[in-house]
Order: sequence, then C-alpha cells, then structure tokens
Amino acid sequence: MHTFDKSNYAQSNYAHNGASGASNSGCESSKESSRSSTPVLDTDRTDRLRDKMRRRTESGDHWFSLEFFPPRTASGAVNLISRFDRMGSGGPLFIDVTWHPAGDPGSDKETSSMMIASTAVNYCGLESILHLTCCNQTKEKITGYLSKAKRLGLKNIMALRGDPMGADWEEEEAGFNYATDLVKHIRCEFDDYFDICVAGYPTGHPEAESYDEDLRHLKEKVDAGADFIITQLFFRADTFLKFVRDCRAIGITCPILPGIFPIQGYQSLRQLVKLSKLEVPEEIMQVIEPIKDNDAAIRNYGIEQAVGMCRVLLESGEVPGLHFYTLNREVATMEVLRQLGLWIEDPRRTLPWAVSAHPKRKVEDVRPIFWASRPKSYIYRTQDWDDFPNGRWGNSSSPAFGELNDYYLFYLKSKSSKDALLKMWGEELTSEQSVYEVFTSYITAQPNVAGHKVMCLPWNDDPLAPETNLLKDELDKVNRRGVLTINSQPSINGKPSSDPIVGWGPPGGYVFQKAYLEFFTSSENVTALLKVLKKYEPRVNYHIVNVHGQNTTNAHDMQPNAVTWGIFPGREIVQPTVVDPVSFLYWKDEAFALWIEQWAKLYEDESPSRMIIKYIHDNYFLVNLVDNDFPLDNCLWQVIDDMFELLDNPPEEQPAEQTAEQPNDEQSDKEQPGK
Amino acid sequence: MHTFDKSNYAQSNYAHNGASGASNSGCESSKESSRSSTPVLDTDRTDRLRDKMRRRTESGDHWFSLEFFPPRTASGAVNLISRFDRMGSGGPLFIDVTWHPAGDPGSDKETSSMMIASTAVNYCGLESILHLTCCNQTKEKITGYLSKAKRLGLKNIMALRGDPMGADWEEEEAGFNYATDLVKHIRCEFDDYFDICVAGYPTGHPEAESYDEDLRHLKEKVDAGADFIITQLFFRADTFLKFVRDCRAIGITCPILPGIFPIQGYQSLRQLVKLSKLEVPEEIMQVIEPIKDNDAAIRNYGIEQAVGMCRVLLESGEVPGLHFYTLNREVATMEVLRQLGLWIEDPRRTLPWAVSAHPKRKVEDVRPIFWASRPKSYIYRTQDWDDFPNGRWGNSSSPAFGELNDYYLFYLKSKSSKDALLKMWGEELTSEQSVYEVFTSYITAQPNVAGHKVMCLPWNDDPLAPETNLLKDELDKVNRRGVLTINSQPSINGKPSSDPIVGWGPPGGYVFQKAYLEFFTSSENVTALLKVLKKYEPRVNYHIVNVHGQNTTNAHDMQPNAVTWGIFPGREIVQPTVVDPVSFLYWKDEAFALWIEQWAKLYEDESPSRMIIKYIHDNYFLVNLVDNDFPLDNCLWQVIDDMFELLDNPPEEQPAEQTAEQPNDEQSDKEQPGK
Repeated sequence: MHTFDKSNYAQSNYAHNGASGASNSGCESSKESSRSSTPVLDTDRTDRLRDKMRRRTESGDHWFSLEFFPPRTASGAVNLISRFDRMGSGGPLFIDVTWHPAGDPGSDKETSSMMIASTAVNYCGLESILHLTCCNQTKEKITGYLSKAKRLGLKNIMALRGDPMGADWEEEEAGFNYATDLVKHIRCEFDDYFDICVAGYPTGHPEAESYDEDLRHLKEKVDAGADFIITQLFFRADTFLKFVRDCRAIGITCPILPGIFPIQGYQSLRQLVKLSKLEVPEEIMQVIEPIKDNDAAIRNYGIEQAVGMCRVLLESGEVPGLHFYTLNREVATMEVLRQLGLWIEDPRRTLPWAVSAHPKRKVEDVRPIFWASRPKSYIYRTQDWDDFPNGRWGNSSSPAFGELNDYYLFYLKSKSSKDALLKMWGEELTSEQSVYEVFTSYITAQPNVAGHKVMCLPWNDDPLAPETNLLKDELDKVNRRGVLTINSQPSINGKPSSDPIVGWGPPGGYVFQKAYLEFFTSSENVTALLKVLKKYEPRVNYHIVNVHGQNTTNAHDMQPNAVTWGIFPGREIVQPTVVDPVSFLYWKDEAFALWIEQWAKLYEDESPSRMIIKYIHDNYFLVNLVDNDFPLDNCLWQVIDDMFELLDNPPEEQPAEQTAEQPNDEQSDKEQPGK
Repeated sequence: MHTFDKSNYAQSNYAHNGASGASNSGCESSKESSRSSTPVLDTDRTDRLRDKMRRRTESGDHWFSLEFFPPRTASGAVNLISRFDRMGSGGPLFIDVTWHPAGDPGSDKETSSMMIASTAVNYCGLESILHLTCCNQTKEKITGYLSKAKRLGLKNIMALRGDPMGADWEEEEAGFNYATDLVKHIRCEFDDYFDICVAGYPTGHPEAESYDEDLRHLKEKVDAGADFIITQLFFRADTFLKFVRDCRAIGITCPILPGIFPIQGYQSLRQLVKLSKLEVPEEIMQVIEPIKDNDAAIRNYGIEQAVGMCRVLLESGEVPGLHFYTLNREVATMEVLRQLGLWIEDPRRTLPWAVSAHPKRKVEDVRPIFWASRPKSYIYRTQDWDDFPNGRWGNSSSPAFGELNDYYLFYLKSKSSKDALLKMWGEELTSEQSVYEVFTSYITAQPNVAGHKVMCLPWNDDPLAPETNLLKDELDKVNRRGVLTINSQPSINGKPSSDPIVGWGPPGGYVFQKAYLEFFTSSENVTALLKVLKKYEPRVNYHIVNVHGQNTTNAHDMQPNAVTWGIFPGREIVQPTVVDPVSFLYWKDEAFALWIEQWAKLYEDESPSRMIIKYIHDNYFLVNLVDNDFPLDNCLWQVIDDMFELLDNPPEEQPAEQTAEQPNDEQSDKEQPGK
C-alpha cells in the first residue's frame, strides 16, 4: 500500500513492497541472439543460472548465494518465506533448499523441500536450486521428483548421494550408488533442461578412501554433466584454495563455489562438525571454548572469522562467488555480506514489481496495479496462464484469473497470528468509525486505542514506511473520514531510471507514473464523489464497483490505462503497470473477500464486530482513480477534498422549476482544475 | 525529410509530410465492443463508413466528401494521386471514384477506376467509394469486379445502373437492368461486407416515368440493402430539401447526401447539363451568360452560389454532410469548403504518419522511421504482410519487406518530369561537391548554380518548409560538407497532443520524441564519426551501413528503439515510430537504390555525372543517429561538429611507444557531454 520516501513526494508501494521479492542484482544489457518479442529488460531474466555465473565471472562481479533447509512446521514455512523476501532483497544470485529424505521432501506439504523451493522460485522470485539425494531411491521415484520440479518451474538441481539410511548400506545394482549416477540420470532423462550442481569436499569426503580418490570422484561427477561445484564448509581459506588448485590440476574447469559457514553458536558448530565429520582448527577452538556460553560473543567472532576468510578468498581471484550456509538465520550472514560489500542495500529493480523466477513468466512485463501489495496472490491467481501479457496487456488472450479461495496456502498467509491481528485491528469493533481508526493508525504509524501499533492490513502485510510528510497528512485525513485507502502511487514526470526511490530498469532511462489512488468508501461518499468527478473529465479516470459487481466508470470498458512506464536508451517503451478494467473486476472479488476472510472471521459468528465488517463488505464501494495529467500536480487529493466539501455543504434544494437556472453549476465550473 | 516550424525547434517530416495523406478528421473516442489488442487510437480507423456517418450525424459534426473521375493518361494518374494527398489533408469523410465503362475500369491499368480507388485507399489513406455500373454486364463480370475490389481493400460501392451503350437498350432477362439488381447482387454475394451507396435524383431521373415513380425506385434500392444516398447535382437548396422530405415521407430513412457542383466554367456547365439532362435555373443563367468568356468571374460566381446554397442546406438540419463533384479540380471546391468552415486546415493526426485506409492495416500502429518521407513506398513494400505489428514492433513475425524494383508504379513516381529533375539536380555534375550543393540548395531553398530551386530529392518528393531558423543553419552547414541529410526529427519532451506543430493522437495527451538524424556520408567521415561517437556512449545509438551491407552499430541487433511515443488519458502507451535495426537493412537497399534509379539514370551511361552518383552509391555510408536523452538538448549536431573538428584538426601522430601516454584521450574525455 502506501509507503513514503524522504523527499517530498510519496513513494508507491510498487517501489518498495513490490520489490521485496526481487532477486535482480545486475542490470547489464547484453546482446541477444534472437529477435525478442518483448523489450529486453534484463538479460538475467532470460539466462539460465550457469550463464549468469559465466557472465558475472567474466565481468569480475562477485556474487553470493544462500542455503536454507525446509522448516519443520507450517508456521516455520510462513516465516521462511518471509525470510526469503527479506534476504532476497539483498541480491543473492540464487538460493538452494536442502533435501530432507525423512521429511517427505517431494510432497505437496508446505514443509517439503519441493514446496519450499517452488515457493522461492514462483512467489519470491528467487533463482533456486533444489537438492536431491539419490541413495535408497528407485530411478522411477527420482524421475518423478525431477518431473515435478520441472513442472513447478525449478531449473536447477544439486545432485547428491545422500546419507545411507543405516550402517549396513551396500551398493545396489539397479539403484543409485553415487551422485555421479544421479547426474547421469538427470542428463539422460532431462537432457540439458536442468543446471546441475554437485558437492565438493575441500578436505575430502569423510567416506572416501583418500583425498585424491575423492577428487577423482568429483571429476567423474563433472564429466557426467555437472555445471558447477559448491563445496562443503571449511575453516581456512587455504584449504579451499588448495582444493581449487587440485581440481584444476586434474582438469575440472567449471565454477567452484566455496561454502561459507559463519559460526553462530557453540552448539550448532559442534553439531555440524559431528555431522560433517570435519575438524575445527585448533586456533578457532581456542577462541571459542572460553566464550562458549556467550552466544553474542561467538556470533561476533564467527562474523569476523568469516569476513576475514572471505576477503582472502575473493582477493585470490579464484572465487567468483560465495555460498553461505545460513542455517535459516539472517543476522550473521547478512552482516558478513554487508562487511564484504556484497549485500545490495538498494537493489536496482528490473521492473517496478517483483519478478517471478518461473521460466514461463520470463517474458512477463506488465501487470495490473491492483495486486501491488499482494504480488504472491497475483502470481497464484495467474499460475495457470499459458501466456503472459508480453508487450501490451491487451495482447494476452485474457485468460480468466483463478479463484482465490485458498487463503490457507502458507505463502499467501499473513505473517501475524490471530492474536496479533486482533490486537492491531481491534478485539471489539463498535462502529464503522472504529474501522476507520484502524486504517488511520496504520497510515500514521500511531498506536490504536488499545495501544497497539497497526503493522498490517488485510490488503497489505507490510507496515508503512515511517516517514511523516504531506501525503501522509492527506492519507490520515481521508482515512479518518472513511476513505479507506489500500493502494496509491504519486505522479512522476521523467525521473532518471537510476533514482534510488522511484527508479527501475536499465540505467540511462527515465521513468514516469500517473497518480493512482484506490480505496473503499460508503455509497453516500460515492454519490458525492460521482458528482465531483464530473468536474475532472477527462483528466481523471475512475472505476467504482461494489461487491455485487455494480460498476461505474468513465473509462473504456476494455482498454487498459498505462500508469507506470519507462523510456530507455535503444529500447522500446516499457509499460509495466496498467489499470486494467477487466482485471479490476477480478481484483474486486479478492479485495472484498479479504474483509471477510482476514478480518471478519477473527470474530465470533453474529458478533457485532463481525457484523460491522460484514456491513462494510456488503455496502461499501471499491474506488480507483487515475490522474492522467502526469506532468501536473496530482489532483486526486483535491478530488477527495471536493467530495468532502460537497458532503459538508450540500447545495440547497431548489424548487424544481428553478433548477435550470441555479448558480451552483457555474460556481463549480469555476473550480474546475482543467489543464 | 526536414521541415521546420516557426518556433525554435525543428519540425520533423513526420509531422508534416507524413500526415499529408491522412484522412483523419475526427478524434472522438468512443467505446468499443470487443477487447482490443492494440491501443484504440481513433474509432474512425475501425468503424465502417456508415458507422462514421452515423456517429457524425448524431454529434452534429458536418462532413464533406469529394468525387473524382479516373484520369485519361498515366501522368494524369500521378497528378491525381498527388491531388488526393493535398485534398485528403482537408479531412474529407470519403472520396469516390467514378466508373468509366469505356476505360477498362476494372483493370490493372494505372488509369482504371479500380486502380485509382485502390491507390486512394491504400496509399493515400482515404476512405473511398468505388462506383460500379451494371448495365450490359454479366453477373460473373460484376462479381469479379467486386471480388477484386474486396481484395484490394475497398469497402464501399456506389451501385449504379449506368448508361446503356446504345439507343436501343432493352431489359435483359439474365443481366442487371436496374441499380436495385446490383444492390441485391452485392448483398447476395458479399453479404454485409460492402457499404452500398445509391444515387438519388432530386428532380427525378430523366428516364423515369415520373418524379414519384423515381422515388419509388429509390425506395426499392434502399430496401434492397443500400446504406445511404448521394444525389445528382441540383442548383437550388429547395430542390434538395423537398426531395429529402419526399423521401422521408415514403419511408426512406438512410442518410441522403446532397451532390454539390460548384460552377467552374461555362463550357463544363453546358456539357454537364447536357449529359445529366438538368435544367439550369433562369436566375443562374442570367448571371452566367454575360460573363461566359470570363472563367475567373464564372468560377467566383460558382463559389458564391455553392456557398450560399450549402449554407441553406446545412442550416436546414436535414444535411449531415456535403458531397462535391470536383471534376478533378481543387480550387473551387476547396474555396467553398473553406468558406463553409468545413476544410480542416490543420487536421488532427491520429498518428505521426499517414494511416492507410486498407482494412487489413486498421491495427497498424507502429512503423520504422526510415520511410517517413516515403510512406507510399513503405505501404507498397509491406502490402503482402498478413499481420501488422500491433503494439510493439517485435510482436510481428518479422515478415520480409518486398523488393522495390517497381519504381515505375505511378503512385510511387516523382511528381517532377525528367527535365525538371535535371534542372534541379544538375544537368552535369562535376564532383561530389556538386552533389553536396544540390542538397544544400534543397535545405536552404536557395536556387542552385543554374538558378533553379531544388524542390525535391530522390528521398523526398516534397519541398522543405521555407522557415529559416537555427536548425536550418545546422543542416546547411553539414550538407555543405558532405553530410547529406535525408531524415531528421527534433527531441520533444512532453508537448500536449493538441500542439498544432508536433501534436498527434487524441486530446489531453502528451507526445515525446527522441532526436533523430539520418544521412549519407563518405567513409572518411564515418571513420572520424566512429571515433567521436565513443564519447557519446550510451547516449547516442547509431547504425552505419554501406550499400554492400557492411554494418556497424552500438545498438542491440534485434531490439527496436522507440523514437516517437505518446501518453493519453485512459490508454496504453502508443509508440508509433521506431528505429528498427532489421528494417534499416531493408531501407538501406531502397535508400541506396534511389541514387541510381532516380538520379544516376538521368544521365547517359558512362557519363561523368552518372559516374559521380555511382561513386557515392558505391562508397558512401548511410548513417542514422538517435539521441536517447530526450529531456536534454539534442546532441546530434554536436556529434557532427565534433566529427568535423576531428577531421579539421586530426590528433598528431605519436610514435608507437608513446601512444599509451598521449594526452588526447584525456582531453576528449573532458569534452564528454554525458549526463
């Protein structure tokens, strides 16, 4: 919804929340080999992972990547997805999700490896690698997993043997005995579809006969078709650098990425060491042992140790990117990356909204503005589309949006618990006014009557940026009076594409926006608004609809209105956001349903609180306004002010025969803000 | 090529010449019934003629239309097409072309009714009605004509009986005896494809038994499926108004358009009266007889008489539009229309280029800039395309351009004779410099060395607008030194779409352009230019190619660069002009060929003049430059200045071992005009 920048104009949600899941870290333009049917915005979007690695290796642009494991619980899944969004904003080249054979990893459970990786790709826009272990698995089972991964849009597999399920493991004739078998199987069954990663052991695999023997195994895996190597963790830069030299010496030429493990606590270190059969160097143990009960001290040491080691690695020239074992935690890894200068504080955005990483959506370059704060829901509701509107919206064959009845899906769930929501939105509502106050608290970032800050609303799961400024005053004022705003963007007339606040797309361009405002409001307000809007023809376009689909507009029924666009050197015009009349009616269903699904259902059946929300749901209208005159000051606040003015000072009723001569029309003509 | 406006920035050809063939007269937006795959720019483009009439009748927006007859000679055809362009610019709703049974009217001859009407539609962008007479024709023949008309993009037929070929005409059993038969036949064979017009006789058909009998015939024609009526000429407004009343009385409800004949001379009046068996009213004969030898006086009277009558007609409220019998002349009709205020001096342009009226091209909304001054050639070379790039250029399946070997086609021919061309371009060329002087004369509108004004060049058949201004000085200067400019447009940063000079598209919008410059120049110049252009990366995109296809560019191989675009209320972005790298190589063939086909071939084989043109053709490069930074001042003149500067003051040769340290690079860095 609304966020604000530090300067004097408002920042749309599109600029901030929309970008939170984007994984775009490079914006180099490079030539493509085929005629493109859509403006080439970012080669990263069309390249596969190994090509991105190659390009960044060639340009010396170091990258980082992040490893996560699947959560144990459903709420853990919600948290992990929200962590993906936060860590994704720092610009990892990819993430990977480990395979937990004991956790039904290929299932549709929200905690499965498959689902977590798929969510990262589809809903968080992260290039992702799914781990896959092959021991104790039939070929059919493995092929099934791979087919499913492919169907879900996954493009990269980390091929592992995995740990045998018992001590008495023996080679199986018909199954997979080594990761090499899995690599061969993937190439055999899926040709070149997947990028394949394999594991390297800088100190040799614990079960290998020797370091050299293990290197030969690694060579076999690469020769079987692996594209790159990620190593097991290690504690000394020299260990890795020697390993790389040894790999190169026997003819392994693919990228070798060091696995970095920032020590985060004494217990986790011990556990990891036990599992991986690694030895922690004496000099590290000497530091850690004395502070083993001081978590903060150990973490600080771990950060320092990792930063030092990473610096040596990067300076060696042998390391194009660093791979982090995050243990699903954020702080230590982010701090290491910040100190190394690899964390992208303000990532360049390819487009004003979060780009999905699903291969099918590579050409997607335009979306309706309505889902600005609910990009995951938009992706979900359009997941079955065969084609994505490339170029103009109208080029799509206009497939229907999917129903959104699946509010329970973990990647669409609110991050807040029912208790937290009740505290924010009111344990008990007494009137429509108390709903207005919730909106106002959200807008102003002031505590509500019960003293709780309102950090989210059903239409926006993220808090407002805390800046106070002119627009915030306007929003405060209008929400207080029942203009319940859920989306807005300011007008922008040609800001550089490199603008840190509103910029997007490749450098050297200019970005533009038409001002947009979307809100719920009562039918009384709508009646006044419609009168006022006559004065703003044709400058302001509106769509006004209630839950029953009663729809009023002064816009073309079918013609989208471009509200965000960019002009770039050597390219066609890019228009990534539109107000599309057809989509608005699908969005309407969702926007109204959120009143019930997310808010009313917090309360008992038949309770007054629930009835109040239900009343709003049944009677209010959803309104969107576009100010087409983007070079002028946004007139939409004036429209709302005029509406309040009309409500406060309704024209006196005139006898019917005098109506034609009454002067009110003339007066309002004088106020006309036309161009 | 270049034309200039009166203000301080240059006006591109796109703005003037490009619009010369456009027939757009109304820009109202109205709702459409189906989802559009392309921005709806102008309902006129998608409506059929009867719908345009209905809309304009409803809105009270009077129109005019123009009747022409096919020329007798090939040069007459060239002249008529050029008259279509001039008269089309005044905004007729349609033109019609008469059917000359004796002139092989359905053939492919350049003088045939079919070819003239087809050219008007396809190459002049005029909504056109083809007359068709049916007497003495078999049904097969008529069906053949109609099929051909449909194939050529004609959508409207004036269904006439025509004059019998002899005095002893009798009804034929199997053929067509009356226009009604033809109307029925068209509806029967072509369903609702054609809009059908029929003739009305305000004083009754000369062969009809009675006025009432004739009215009944007219009712039959309308009932058979005619959409509207155009009347025979008449001399008194009352005659027409009574006729309309009588038509309405018997149930004829379709539009009835009065045929206006401005008297243009004594002989033509007598001849027409004889043919049409009309009586000229006494009051008119009394005025004309005394001045019958004074053509100017008669024409002035004719204008006055027509204006007076038209005023009465329009004021009656019964007349939505006026139809003019032009006799293929311009002056009188244009003057009448001007006095009536119906002639559109500065027609609103739907797009920056001339829109073709062929139904297949209705969705066309983007073209490469290269053919800006040769729109007919562009239409010709793309006539076989099944699809027109709708939305983005890249959406087209990129069909190949047709070869342009048909320079003899009358609608592609120069309006000037060989003699006139030789006078303008030089009876004898002595050096490349004499070619530069031709270009300079064209640019400056000053006579050449032989004292003749250069009104056209092979790449542009229209003279430059005569304004003198800053840009003209620049063009003068660069052409003098062998930068032979053939196309340019200034940068525009958001002028209102209603701007009389650069505006296009519906009202309330804003138009933009990137500066563009295209020229031929020598390989020495190109070498210097390429050095200079390094300083302008990535601000300036260039494509440089010679006749052999040797091609240098800093742009994406396949990605078009939008150089003209518009933002309108309630619509998607419109980007009607692009610099498309693929099309440029097709344009290159044509642009180089014009040196030979239009210029070199004026001279004897092996003559020095021919050799000079041939040398330029063989050795020069065609260069295009785009300044991507449209909000800043156009830097392309600075690029050319820098090139001359480098040619005039080449950096001193340095011994090879000092090259790395020589300071020239640093100096030129300082001059860098980057953003």
